[in-house]
Amino acid sequence: MDYVYGPGKNHLFVPGPVNIPEPVIRAMNRNNEDYRSPAVPAMTKTLLEDVKKIFKTTTGTPFMIPTTGTGAWESALTNTLSPGDRIVSFLIGQFSLLWIDQQQRLKFNVDVVESEWGQGAKLDILAEKLAADHAHTIKAICIVHNETATGVTNNLATVRKLLDQYRHPALFLVDGVSSICALDFRMDEWGVDVALTGSQKALSLPTGIGIVCASPKALEASKSAKSVRVFFDWNDYLKFYKLGTFWPYTPSIQLLYGLRTALDLIFEEGLDNVIARHSRLGTATRLAVEAWGLKNCTQKEEWYSDTVTAVLVPPHIDSSEIVKRAWKRYNLSLGLGLNKVAGKVFRIGHLGNVNDLQLLGCLAGVEMILKDVGYPVKLGSGVAAACAYLQNNIPMIPSRI
Amino acid sequence: MDYVYGPGKNHLFVPGPVNIPEPVIRAMNRNNEDYRSPAVPAMTKTLLEDVKKIFKTTTGTPFMIPTTGTGAWESALTNTLSPGDRIVSFLIGQFSLLWIDQQQRLKFNVDVVESEWGQGAKLDILAEKLAADHAHTIKAICIVHNETATGVTNNLATVRKLLDQYRHPALFLVDGVSSICALDFRMDEWGVDVALTGSQKALSLPTGIGIVCASPKALEASKSAKSVRVFFDWNDYLKFYKLGTFWPYTPSIQLLYGLRTALDLIFEEGLDNVIARHSRLGTATRLAVEAWGLKNCTQKEEWYSDTVTAVLVPPHIDSSEIVKRAWKRYNLSLGLGLNKVAGKVFRIGHLGNVNDLQLLGCLAGVEMILKDVGYPVKLGSGVAAACAYLQNNIPMIPSRI
Amino acid sequence: MDYVYGPGKNHLFVPGPVNIPEPVIRAMNRNNEDYRSPAVPAMTKTLLEDVKKIFKTTTGTPFMIPTTGTGAWESALTNTLSPGDRIVSFLIGQFSLLWIDQQQRLKFNVDVVESEWGQGAKLDILAEKLAADHAHTIKAICIVHNETATGVTNNLATVRKLLDQYRHPALFLVDGVSSICALDFRMDEWGVDVALTGSQKALSLPTGIGIVCASPKALEASKSAKSVRVFFDWNDYLKFYKLGTFWPYTPSIQLLYGLRTALDLIFEEGLDNVIARHSRLGTATRLAVEAWGLKNCTQKEEWYSDTVTAVLVPPHIDSSEIVKRAWKRYNLSLGLGLNKVAGKVFRIGHLGNVNDLQLLGCLAGVEMILKDVGYPVKLGSGVAAACAYLQNNIPMIPSRI
Amino acid sequence: MDYVYGPGKNHLFVPGPVNIPEPVIRAMNRNNEDYRSPAVPAMTKTLLEDVKKIFKTTTGTPFMIPTTGTGAWESALTNTLSPGDRIVSFLIGQFSLLWIDQQQRLKFNVDVVESEWGQGAKLDILAEKLAADHAHTIKAICIVHNETATGVTNNLATVRKLLDQYRHPALFLVDGVSSICALDFRMDEWGVDVALTGSQKALSLPTGIGIVCASPKALEASKSAKSVRVFFDWNDYLKFYKLGTFWPYTPSIQLLYGLRTALDLIFEEGLDNVIARHSRLGTATRLAVEAWGLKNCTQKEEWYSDTVTAVLVPPHIDSSEIVKRAWKRYNLSLGLGLNKVAGKVFRIGHLGNVNDLQLLGCLAGVEMILKDVGYPVKLGSGVAAACAYLQNNIPMIPSRI
Repeated sequence: MDYVYGPGKNHLFVPGPVNIPEPVIRAMNRNNEDYRSPAVPAMTKTLLEDVKKIFKTTTGTPFMIPTTGTGAWESALTNTLSPGDRIVSFLIGQFSLLWIDQQQRLKFNVDVVESEWGQGAKLDILAEKLAADHAHTIKAICIVHNETATGVTNNLATVRKLLDQYRHPALFLVDGVSSICALDFRMDEWGVDVALTGSQKALSLPTGIGIVCASPKALEASKSAKSVRVFFDWNDYLKFYKLGTFWPYTPSIQLLYGLRTALDLIFEEGLDNVIARHSRLGTATRLAVEAWGLKNCTQKEEWYSDTVTAVLVPPHIDSSEIVKRAWKRYNLSLGLGLNKVAGKVFRIGHLGNVNDLQLLGCLAGVEMILKDVGYPVKLGSGVAAACAYLQNNIPMIPSRI
Repeated sequence: MDYVYGPGKNHLFVPGPVNIPEPVIRAMNRNNEDYRSPAVPAMTKTLLEDVKKIFKTTTGTPFMIPTTGTGAWESALTNTLSPGDRIVSFLIGQFSLLWIDQQQRLKFNVDVVESEWGQGAKLDILAEKLAADHAHTIKAICIVHNETATGVTNNLATVRKLLDQYRHPALFLVDGVSSICALDFRMDEWGVDVALTGSQKALSLPTGIGIVCASPKALEASKSAKSVRVFFDWNDYLKFYKLGTFWPYTPSIQLLYGLRTALDLIFEEGLDNVIARHSRLGTATRLAVEAWGLKNCTQKEEWYSDTVTAVLVPPHIDSSEIVKRAWKRYNLSLGLGLNKVAGKVFRIGHLGNVNDLQLLGCLAGVEMILKDVGYPVKLGSGVAAACAYLQNNIPMIPSRI
Repeated sequence: MDYVYGPGKNHLFVPGPVNIPEPVIRAMNRNNEDYRSPAVPAMTKTLLEDVKKIFKTTTGTPFMIPTTGTGAWESALTNTLSPGDRIVSFLIGQFSLLWIDQQQRLKFNVDVVESEWGQGAKLDILAEKLAADHAHTIKAICIVHNETATGVTNNLATVRKLLDQYRHPALFLVDGVSSICALDFRMDEWGVDVALTGSQKALSLPTGIGIVCASPKALEASKSAKSVRVFFDWNDYLKFYKLGTFWPYTPSIQLLYGLRTALDLIFEEGLDNVIARHSRLGTATRLAVEAWGLKNCTQKEEWYSDTVTAVLVPPHIDSSEIVKRAWKRYNLSLGLGLNKVAGKVFRIGHLGNVNDLQLLGCLAGVEMILKDVGYPVKLGSGVAAACAYLQNNIPMIPSRI
Repeated sequence: MDYVYGPGKNHLFVPGPVNIPEPVIRAMNRNNEDYRSPAVPAMTKTLLEDVKKIFKTTTGTPFMIPTTGTGAWESALTNTLSPGDRIVSFLIGQFSLLWIDQQQRLKFNVDVVESEWGQGAKLDILAEKLAADHAHTIKAICIVHNETATGVTNNLATVRKLLDQYRHPALFLVDGVSSICALDFRMDEWGVDVALTGSQKALSLPTGIGIVCASPKALEASKSAKSVRVFFDWNDYLKFYKLGTFWPYTPSIQLLYGLRTALDLIFEEGLDNVIARHSRLGTATRLAVEAWGLKNCTQKEEWYSDTVTAVLVPPHIDSSEIVKRAWKRYNLSLGLGLNKVAGKVFRIGHLGNVNDLQLLGCLAGVEMILKDVGYPVKLGSGVAAACAYLQNNIPMIPSRI
């Protein structure tokens, strides 16, 4: 009756798609509707207003495009840049690599700044490039806020500081796919020009909406950007925004209702409480990894990610085997190591709609699997370390009855 | 939008109602239907056939009554007995107490055999009573298979042995509310005359169906039983069974589809695998309790229950406070101590649709709460003990891709 | 994948169970919860307060029992009466007949006042009986507000007038199963002592809650009523009401959330608007029947029911064949004729969550089936008559955007 | 609790998004899952195999892209053509106009063949162009199978015949958005090179999958096509098809399960029966329009569409008013007239998961609204005409119990 079934719940700890809150699943449990009726535009209007809050922007213009993060990337690039434009882009893991691949295929002149996987973006090199770029040939800086493959969070405030320091007019484009709604992100304060995320990440919805938010400067740039675009063209949206019907083509009714509910839940918990929850769970996870005697793929504390932890395994162990057994035996979904770190890391996603005991169940499962593949873990050690921290840091949850 | 909401999932570890499998929730997500159409009787027919399997009976006749366990009790009694009939009934905890209260209010002559709470039914006293009852004044033996309040499982095979030994014709009525579909239960082999359960227990459905299964001897008894009954009267069902329309009054369409799916899942996993899963999780829970240095309310191993563990707390701790904090802080639902053991025990229900990592998350939560209320637990100790056992006893789950 | 499937929607026009509003289906799409947590009692409290409004009572005490209408009947009788008590009961169709059967089996002394099926209760005979009963041997009057088998609505205000006129203290017990929330019902104004309904009728929920509402006089009577009862005993509820935990045994969590939403929807539309909607749809249906040249089973206009219309077919036609073909060919569920009117009538239920175009689709389907079984209907005639009325009587629906 | 609510069901008769079958809604009622687990690829494999059947192709390669119809268009064009390529494209209504707009913005050299709105594509002009094109400068023919704005179905077999007749190698690209799964479509037989549809049309799913199917010749063309593309690039899919993981980026788990169920239902009913059902309902709708004395926007019978009927209203009536009142008063969603036919036509979508009585309810609603806006319709006339046809043409539905 179902495609795969095991007793109990699936423990979903990949860094996306993530667990959907039950009220959101309920809100999406519905038939289609006419998106040209008065109801859908009225709801869309509230969504466009409210979605800005998760970017911490009041001046940005959001686009909720029926696509994935990859499409959101393409929308960010093609609406603001022209073929041949020079962009500085940081390669620090699989997802920044894929974005750079896209940038190259879209015919931009990509100035790649590479780091060892496990390290953050080399912002000192950015400083040098900006300092040298008197002619302002650099049209945009492209950076992932959080590299999902290695669990590395970049410091966006520093990027803005450098741009300001060198009075450089380059656009500041940020992939916030695994950060927005989970990590501290401040579009206006940091002067980000385009930020984007996908519905299936910290927003905790199904895949299907790529949300792109453009600063006034980015909107201005879109008027002269020569990249060919139709489906991803902001201008088609802006035309319908003016008409008050909002949609150039058919949106998913279910995802609109889901997004409405997801935002309501985030605001009920409080966006900053949501971010604090991610910090608690990220810290607890890292303490467990330490207790197991394993290394975090992320090499320095300043880059630690509160949404995903990539765990390095000893050389004689294949991390893919851990992921495989976790799924088969405990209905636990962990993230694989990708590309350069394939076989070397497994990833625990702790973003989106998740709470303490769910994470602790996952950590207990990881311990059993580690033991099962021959790593001499002390059972209970990671859970104990995580519990010790969590127990002293009471979760902030919405007030109840 | 919802009545109470916290991030992540609710961790439901009361001994009922229990977690519903997602395919069952899906199957029930539907509009009403005409129960007199050809479809509903056709489905009902398969349900009546299949529901017998969870009682391990081929000769029994099941009744799926729109009621709760309390109603199922009443159906079992009023269909087989007449006011004034002498019955032997075992008081070992809150639920057997409530059943006895019902028996008395229904005007039976109840011969109560009481045990200390935490102990099983005194079957030696049953032996004495049977031995002495040459006149066969005892019309029925009423016993709970599993006392949900104290986590005590009674030995039903012994009851049957005694009845056989003394060639006593008394009816053998069993409350299997927190056992059937989770503990080893054999209606035919043990010569049980009426067995019953509720849909919200190990069947893992919502509340709403009281399932009562009657042996041929019980059906025969119903012909002369003089207790007044209408709603709970088996005879009304039997009339409609003959007609092939099955329902004397309106069933819940949603629960019928839910039951169909629940049975499919149980048979896919294998009923004996389901029982083995309960044994694994019960054992793991008891090992955790031991590691915490706490006592099981159940006084002897022979009575240990694989569906619920009642944990005794030290005298200076109020177990209700544990339950309250678990819910408020960790979205963890534990069972309260009831009546004589109120404040003294909290209960972990580990029955129904639950798996290893869910239980381990719960145990981790209990540890944090124990520490929080001042009990000097070593964090991680219970989880470690449970993991050590579970990791060596690979779960039997349905074959996957 | 499903038990029976045809393209498009099932057209559910039996007089119960009825169509569930989609928001209610969504609200019920959820896992179980601990009913002893703080959340469930808090919600229950609002339900008990709000459910009184659908009875139009401020002084009544409601009981939401996990049962069907049959169980609600039993609860009404056993809590207020003692075996042997004389009650006057009106037999006007299959459901009043079944209630009377229950009354007799519960050992009351039933004074049956029978009408021809298709006529209302003979209240003139009631007057005679009350006038003659100086000794007040009549303990209760039992009457269905709306006989679902024949589509006959009784005049409850007249019953009260007669009781007042003869200053008779008999309890006034009303089966409102197919009336409450659809027809004008006024518990306090009419001095009804016990009124009851089932969740699957005009409340438009799944089957599973029998709602019984008791006046202060009925509650008083329950203190001395000697009928044996446990599951249906109001006193067990009252005990838990005082404790603030509300439930003597496990309720269906899903139905509680469903009821919460159902009540919210009814209050949003306005209870009197809901009743007016039923009146519009009832009138439209009767106009269609007239246009077809068929007779209403209900013999006089004063008894016309706005929740169900029983349509008489010509003698050479078997009404069961109409019901069978409607289901098989058009996915249309109509009500069968029952007992005395089996084969002679088919029934259109137009109660609960239904609107104009749904009804018109049903009427069009009935026309095609009538033609198909050889009745010389003019296709479109019934729809035309209904449309002419409806088009001039604009529906009152909740204000929209 | 919901965004807009009225009693009863919404009657959804826009030509997309359409009504979702309840089993599909159920199948989608679920949490996210790891799309890199073994389960999702295993299911995807079956989908890719089965989805070919709705295109009636065995040699085509399908791509299920997380996008809308607009994105599917873009994928069809950019994967097969290079900027500057000459294409012949037929403008016959709003959706072909939008596709042509896209073609032009993607920098193709579009040779537009325009028809009056309400007429089909001018295939005689295509013949001329092909005849004259000895140099094979025409790289592709772009045509909508069914123009959703006017209810015009083009004859694709003729297009193929012409291409063959002139031995012209141009690619044959077909927008099947409002045809595939509803109208007779034969990719292999007609030598279509790229065909596409959207999940929210006749497949009866939510919006979110643009399904594009490419012939071997189209795949070959994609190797040299120079249009810039990343998100829509088939090659990224083909790479992952080879790996057996199938997805270059995150799909919607819910839509995959939904699609699995939607295909199962279509195959259970039989694709040709589904098409026959659309023909029945299309015919019935047109008979109703005729009975009302109104004109079909489609000017000749050969172009009549079985998925959408655009109804011309008399000059003094504003068709938008009809749509507005239908929604507000009867919860009936009709399609607006678009662009050139705005205010002049309203549209009845009769595609996807819909049955006889749903359509008849809609037609009855249209009659009441027509009368309400002052058009002298005879109430019941359209329904009568539709019923007369339908009653003589028994629906072919899957065999039932």
